[in-house]
Order: sequence, then structure tokens, then C-alpha cells
Amino acid sequence: MNTADRATAEGILFTDQYQLTMAQLYFRMGLHEKEAQFDHFFRDYPDYGAHGAGYCVNAGLEWLVEWMGRVCFRAEDIAYLRSHKTRTGESLFADDFLDWLRANGDFSGISLRAIPEGRVVHPNTPLTVVRGPLAQAQILETALLNFLNYQVLIATKAARIRESGRGQLLLEFGMRRAHERGANAGARAALIGGADYSSNAGMSHVLGYPPKGTHAHSMVQAFLALGMDEIDAFRAYADVYPDECSLLVDTINTLESGVPNAIKVFEELRRKGHRPVGVRLDSGDLAYLSIRAAKLLNDAGFPDVSIVLSNNLDELVIWQITTQIAEEAHRYGVDPDNVIKRLVYGVGTRLITSAGDSSLGGVYKLVAINDSNAWRPAIKISESREKTPNPGNKELWRIYDERGQATADLITLAEEDPAAHSPLILRHPATRVKRRQLEPRQISRIEPLLVDVFVDGKLVYDLPTIDDMRLLRRADVDRLDPGVRRLINPHVYHVSLSQALWDLKDELIHALGGGD
Amino acid sequence: MNTADRATAEGILFTDQYQLTMAQLYFRMGLHEKEAQFDHFFRDYPDYGAHGAGYCVNAGLEWLVEWMGRVCFRAEDIAYLRSHKTRTGESLFADDFLDWLRANGDFSGISLRAIPEGRVVHPNTPLTVVRGPLAQAQILETALLNFLNYQVLIATKAARIRESGRGQLLLEFGMRRAHERGANAGARAALIGGADYSSNAGMSHVLGYPPKGTHAHSMVQAFLALGMDEIDAFRAYADVYPDECSLLVDTINTLESGVPNAIKVFEELRRKGHRPVGVRLDSGDLAYLSIRAAKLLNDAGFPDVSIVLSNNLDELVIWQITTQIAEEAHRYGVDPDNVIKRLVYGVGTRLITSAGDSSLGGVYKLVAINDSNAWRPAIKISESREKTPNPGNKELWRIYDERGQATADLITLAEEDPAAHSPLILRHPATRVKRRQLEPRQISRIEPLLVDVFVDGKLVYDLPTIDDMRLLRRADVDRLDPGVRRLINPHVYHVSLSQALWDLKDELIHALGGGD
Repeated sequence: MNTADRATAEGILFTDQYQLTMAQLYFRMGLHEKEAQFDHFFRDYPDYGAHGAGYCVNAGLEWLVEWMGRVCFRAEDIAYLRSHKTRTGESLFADDFLDWLRANGDFSGISLRAIPEGRVVHPNTPLTVVRGPLAQAQILETALLNFLNYQVLIATKAARIRESGRGQLLLEFGMRRAHERGANAGARAALIGGADYSSNAGMSHVLGYPPKGTHAHSMVQAFLALGMDEIDAFRAYADVYPDECSLLVDTINTLESGVPNAIKVFEELRRKGHRPVGVRLDSGDLAYLSIRAAKLLNDAGFPDVSIVLSNNLDELVIWQITTQIAEEAHRYGVDPDNVIKRLVYGVGTRLITSAGDSSLGGVYKLVAINDSNAWRPAIKISESREKTPNPGNKELWRIYDERGQATADLITLAEEDPAAHSPLILRHPATRVKRRQLEPRQISRIEPLLVDVFVDGKLVYDLPTIDDMRLLRRADVDRLDPGVRRLINPHVYHVSLSQALWDLKDELIHALGGGD
Repeated sequence: MNTADRATAEGILFTDQYQLTMAQLYFRMGLHEKEAQFDHFFRDYPDYGAHGAGYCVNAGLEWLVEWMGRVCFRAEDIAYLRSHKTRTGESLFADDFLDWLRANGDFSGISLRAIPEGRVVHPNTPLTVVRGPLAQAQILETALLNFLNYQVLIATKAARIRESGRGQLLLEFGMRRAHERGANAGARAALIGGADYSSNAGMSHVLGYPPKGTHAHSMVQAFLALGMDEIDAFRAYADVYPDECSLLVDTINTLESGVPNAIKVFEELRRKGHRPVGVRLDSGDLAYLSIRAAKLLNDAGFPDVSIVLSNNLDELVIWQITTQIAEEAHRYGVDPDNVIKRLVYGVGTRLITSAGDSSLGGVYKLVAINDSNAWRPAIKISESREKTPNPGNKELWRIYDERGQATADLITLAEEDPAAHSPLILRHPATRVKRRQLEPRQISRIEPLLVDVFVDGKLVYDLPTIDDMRLLRRADVDRLDPGVRRLINPHVYHVSLSQALWDLKDELIHALGGGD
């Protein structure tokens, strides 16, 4: 795609066609500048079949904000829309609408509230709240979902992989299997959610993290094809990178060739005063090979050299590897902790594509519309009360218990102050008879989660750094119950409605002929 | 990501860091300008668990070609690389290497052969063959795989969905759930592989196809929240789009409200001389609702109005829907064919993410290196003979049987002419004792599949249009055995080695100590 085409395809036309036809309809009906509110939320945690997530990590906001501030309907976009014809050969978009779009079709009238990136988030809570003229807020839908759905998905996957890796160094290696340019968003989200570094050179540069990597099989193969040996390739690498020497040891045979050759080269480095860094294992039984490699490295006096693992890793595979090492290392005369604490995980495909559940079902639903200076809640009845979006303008709060652990997210009407309720009633979102009641002594803190990002199109939010986001993520994950954090069958975190929100929703459902 | 950052992250630094460190090593060893050959291929068809693909559709080449012709190491990229430090605080990249990279670090020395986009392709055959200086060919790896893996994956998924949809109109609706900017590549690949149109406005513009869509629930909701009814929303839509009137009928209740209201509006349109286009069903039992909606539409005299289906469709869901309609329609007094022939499939998430198998494992392997004007084959032994890449410079042929059906893809050494062999021996790639033998009378055509794209960096390939690619795809799919095309448990298409290639591979495997 050439540069001009890219500007078209990644500008404001990065949207579904129906947003534009609906915008024209709103224009024609005189509804286009009515203030509307849309909530963005997801309905379910990623579900990997054998295991599902118990929490998500929010990500993607900054890139959305940057895009919203930059794009508009350029003359060439308008010219393109003008060329659309109906089946009967007439113009699909009328001139008066296109004139309005050219003058007003940007996001400068939008107010946006959101949960900061890096924070732990849960289903059916508003992650992003958009208010603005109906037409512009409608046009924003597709790009907003596109920017946020994927980064939340990958930040969440990275957090799970970090959890299963017991805090060992985690490297994002997935570029080549990513969904084309999504590779960059994926690297960013991985860094927010749990990866320490990425192999992606350009994106690491942009985000200010040193990119990481070892070398490929092809390097060893090239030496072999030229009549040299694996150790010649390793020596060359050690010569050029004496202080960064990480060697891929499985091109020929890991235990019979790769590791012994690496050790020879490491000994040569040591004699010259350098500290070798690591070996990488990219095939075979990684737990068994890690133990054996650790033993060989220990025996040669390299107890600190890292063992980088790669090859279709994810949270379950890593869990299997550490479990197997814990059980088997003693048999080979190695302390399991010595092996596990030197592991580095290079996670590619299964992180960057969130393999097993490769999309997050984030949605963007109209929840209110302003008519003659009165906000009217909007609703759409779905199969179940839980799937029916929560109507109206709302606030989202996190309730911490007496130990300081997050015990529930509470959605209230905007004007409510949950601290004023004693006791605080938490209504189950779907089941009429289920509710929790918290006395003030059971609550250590009630935290509002949404922050102002755009107010009437003006950016009022201080965009945090990735490091800030990581601190938020760590703190939020630490405040989750271990049951919610676990990899398999996590406890269900409570997302509750206030009594007033429950009542409003109930009333609207009944008015539309719905019920329990 | 702002524009400058985007230029960095999507330029030549769109690569893994280790490609750059290996390039420096080759430079230091004086190997960087040795001619090398890398083959790009995938090892396995996408496997969706309950069902796997029996063929793939090639896609992605044009965007790779455009990128290769455009990117280079800009001054700012070099400045960035110069800032990299080792653990001991020295420069990771030396000045002489960076000078060389600035002057030579583009793809103007690369020759590239490839299979055209739209063609049916199979595992373990070279889809793309790169020849050029070792350093540059190495740096190309990550971007090449990134560009091609995803588009092949999505073109293949689209072909399967088209197959299960019995040729009915197929619309790509997945932007909002795509992996960020991968949405655009995904829309393109879907159009190559089997989708007729996409909802993606910008990408449709760039590719010259009219974008398609209906309207969202939010439009109806907005009318409801403002005190109006579903039919008011439908009427407004019909007023603005009298010749494009497709109505989403499930916001309140499909059969009790949506379809009857749509029919009223369609009748009004008809009286004004317009032809209503369709209704869209986005929830519930789509097969049952399609039958009932078709009956209501027929009874009202609209036997040609389309029924657009959406909501987590994929090839199995569509197969279920058409099967169920075929079985049940008669019970409601409707001809199943009348229902099935008016269906349009709007496929989103599960197409654009290839849900169930969201990555293609394409790899890029060194297969030969030129040393003193002699090409030396390179090999890397893997767990199995099948996984071990085929060494050396090769040619790929498609063999058509006496009926004109594709019966095998044959990989030979470059200098071989399979037409000269009588009989033609097709060696099984993994199993020593398995082989096929074709007499000349059993062969109607032997077609070379790779075409020259870049010769020494010069583009010599006339890039086909998407329409051309679709014709290639249709012709290739038609020439596949129905067993290979089927959705569940397809026949395994034969990918064979020539005797000479088998012998070379065997010899190299034994030289490295491998065997069967």
C-alpha cells in the first residue's frame, strides 16, 4: 500500500461504511448534532478453552487519543464519498451532508472518559465513555473498538504469561506471526501487560525500550554451508558481541553439540574478562533440556548464564515447563530453583495473536441521548439481562475491602456517591435475588476508575508513560484475590450495579416489554 | 503513534532486532555480501480443531513488494542504531557497519520469485524465494513473513467461508475485532480469497470496491430513546436510501416487530417505485429466523429481498445454517432454495482473525549460499524429514492429470525439467518407500508456479489486480479434487519431491549425521 493509499485507509475512513450512511441519515433527520453517549465495554474475559482469564488489563487508549486528535475528512475523502453511487446511479451522499462533514466531521466535539491503560478491568463495565454529537460519536465507533479491543486482548495475555512465568524475564518475539501492522500495537500492549522487552526493533525504539534477541538458526547454517562448524559461528558471535553473547544451541543437537560448543566459547570469553549472557533453546523437550543445559553450565562454572526458552510458548506451556523442572531437576543433581530462576521466556505467536481466543468482543453501545436538554437513557434488550447494556450516564467505582484487596467493581448512576450509602448494596447484574451488602467497616477505599481524557475535544489528560502503566498494572494485579489471578478456573470477580441503576434498567426493560 | 514514530515503526526497522545483530556479524566476518537464498514456505494448513484446511490461497505479495521498494535505513534509523549500548556501555553497532548499512541497507540487491496472489498453495513448497546479499536477505525475513503469513491465512479462511456459503454474496465485516491496523490487510486478503465486498470504507476505496453495510442497532435505539418507534427509524432509512434499503430487524424482536415493520416500509417504497434490498438478522437462531423472515417477505410479495446474516459466522456456522434451512424450510411452507439463494453472509470476527487458528506458521529458511561462484545447499535438520527444509535452488511445478485436475505439486532442483522424465517419479517428502509414478498420458499439463518479481532489485512483475487474483483463485479452486476442497477432513493434496531433490536432501541429512 503506497503512502497516499495508507493515509486514506488509516485516516478517518478507517471505519465501517454504515457509520457514514447512518451519519447522513442523522443529518437528514436533524439528529446529527444531538448529544449522545456511547459506552465501550467487553462482555466476556478471553476464554482459551481449557482456561479463561479472570481479569483483563486495559490498553490502547493513547493511540486512539492520538488518532482522534489527528484525523478529519480531508478533501480527498469527501471527493471519494461524493463518487459513491446507489444501485440506480444516483449519489449516495448528498452535497449538503458532505459539506457539513467536511466542516464538522472530526472529533473536536467529543468528550471522552476512560480507564487508564495498565489498569485491571472487568466485563460489562464502561472502559471508555464517549459523549458528543450523534453523527461524530457514531463514526468513531469502528476505530475506537479497533484500537482498544486488540491491545486489551494482548495486554491481558501478556499478564497471564507473566503470571505463569513466576516473574522471570519475558520477551515478546511475535512480529512475524502477528496480523500484519498489528504487530506494533501488539508489541506495545505486551509491554504494558507483562513483557519486559520486545524483539521488534522499530517499536522498541518508539517506546524507548531496548529491543532484545539472540540469533537465528540461519546464522549457524550459513557457517555450516560454507564448510565451517557450529563453534565457528558461536566464536564469531562472541567476537562481535563479547558482552551480549547469547547463543542458539539447537541447530544441530542441543546437548551433544550446541551446549558443549557454547560452553567452550563462554570459557574463551571468560578468559578475556567477559561475562557470557545465555543460551537459547528453541525445540525439543524444553524442561528436560533446560535441566540438562543448566547442569552442564553449572559444571563448567556458569551458574548465572540465562537459558532463554522459545517455541510456541504460552501460559500453559510455561506452567508445564516450570512444573516439570520442579519435579525432575533433582534427578539430574540440579536444584530446580537454580534452573527456574535463570529462565527467560521468549514468547511469540501465542502472545501476539492471543492464540486460543484471538479477539476481544468489545462493543460500543448507545446508552443515552440528549433531547431538549434532558438526557434520555437508551437501551437494547438482549437475550439476557446480563447482556443488556446498562443504560444512562454512569460512574464506575472499585471497592477495596478491609485488607485493601479489590472486592468488586460497582457501576452507579453518575449522580450517586457510593460512599454515602451505608450499608452499600451491590446488586448482581443479572439475578434479581442476588446481592451483597457491605458495611462501612468492610470497605477501605472506594475509587472512581474513569478519568477525563477529552473534554469537548480538548485533551485534558496527561498521557502516562509505559512505565507508569506497568506500575498501575502491577499494583492492580497485586490487589486482586489470588483466586481471581489463577490461570485455570479463576474466581469470578464481582461486577455489581447500584440499586438505583438496577431500578432504572429494570424500568426500561419492562417498558420495552422485556423481563426476567 | 504519531506520524514520525509511525514512519520509524513501519519502515525498515519493522524487523526483529536479531536480524540487525546478525547482519553486523556477517559484515564483520566478511560474509555480508555473499549471495544467499532463503525459501519462504509454511509447514501446515490452518487447523481449526474440528476441521482443517485442505489448501491455502496465496496473498500479501503486492504490499511486500511495495514496502521492499520503498524502505531503507534513513539517517534517523542509523542514529537510533548508533545509540544502542551493550551491557558494558559500549556501542552495540560499530560505525563502519552503520556506514555500510546506510549506503547498502535496502533491498535493491534482492531478487525475488514468488507464486502470484490468488493462487492455491500447499505446505512445504516455496511460495517466495529470496536471493541476495546475506545481510540484506536476512534483514528482510521478519517483514516478509509478517506481510505474507497473515494475508495467506485470511485469504484461505475467506475461501473456506465462500465454499461453505455455496457462492452466496460474502461481506467482510471484521474491522472492529481485527488486530488493529491488520484490519486493512485482512480486508484485502478476504477480498482476494472469497469475500465479494468489505464494510471497511477506506480499504474498499483504496482497492476500488464499493464498501457495504446496513445500519446498526444504535440507529434504532436513538429513535426509541427520542420517543419514536422502530418503524420511524426504518422509514427514515428508506427516505434517505430508497434504493439501498437494507434494514436491521432484530433490535426489538425480529419476527414480531422487525420484519413486519420492514415489510410495511418496503411496501411504501414499492408504491413509490423503489426496490427494497434486504433485511439483516444479527442474533438468535439464524436458520429458523431466515425461514420465517423469508416466508413473511414472500407472503408480502418480496421474494427477492435479501436476508443478510451476521453474528459470529464462520464456515461451520454457515454450513449449519444452510443444512438446517434445507431440512426445515418445507415445514413452514417455504422452498429451502428460495431461502438459501437470498442469503448474504456478513462475516466479521471469525474471518478477520481466522478464529480457531489465528496464525500461519510461515518460515524463511536459508537453503543455499554462494561461495566462490558455487552455490552450496544449506540444511537444518529438524525432528522429521518432512520438517527439514528442502535444500538448494529449486523449481515448483503443478502437475495436472488427464482430466485437467491438479494432482500434485512437485518440487525439483532448478535445473530439472519434469516434462523430460518419462515416467515422472513423485517421491513422498517424508517416507522413503512411498512414491507415485505418472506416465505421460496421465499428465495434461506441467505448470511452473514461481514467477520473477524482483531481478536484482528491479521490479519485473506486472502486479495483477484483485479481480485478476480472484480469477486465478477461482480457476485453481475449480481444479482441485472435491475431496481436497471439502471443509471437514479434506484429502491430503500431494506435495512431492523429484528423485534428484530427494537424493540431495538425503545426502545432506546423512552428512550432518541424520537419517530416517
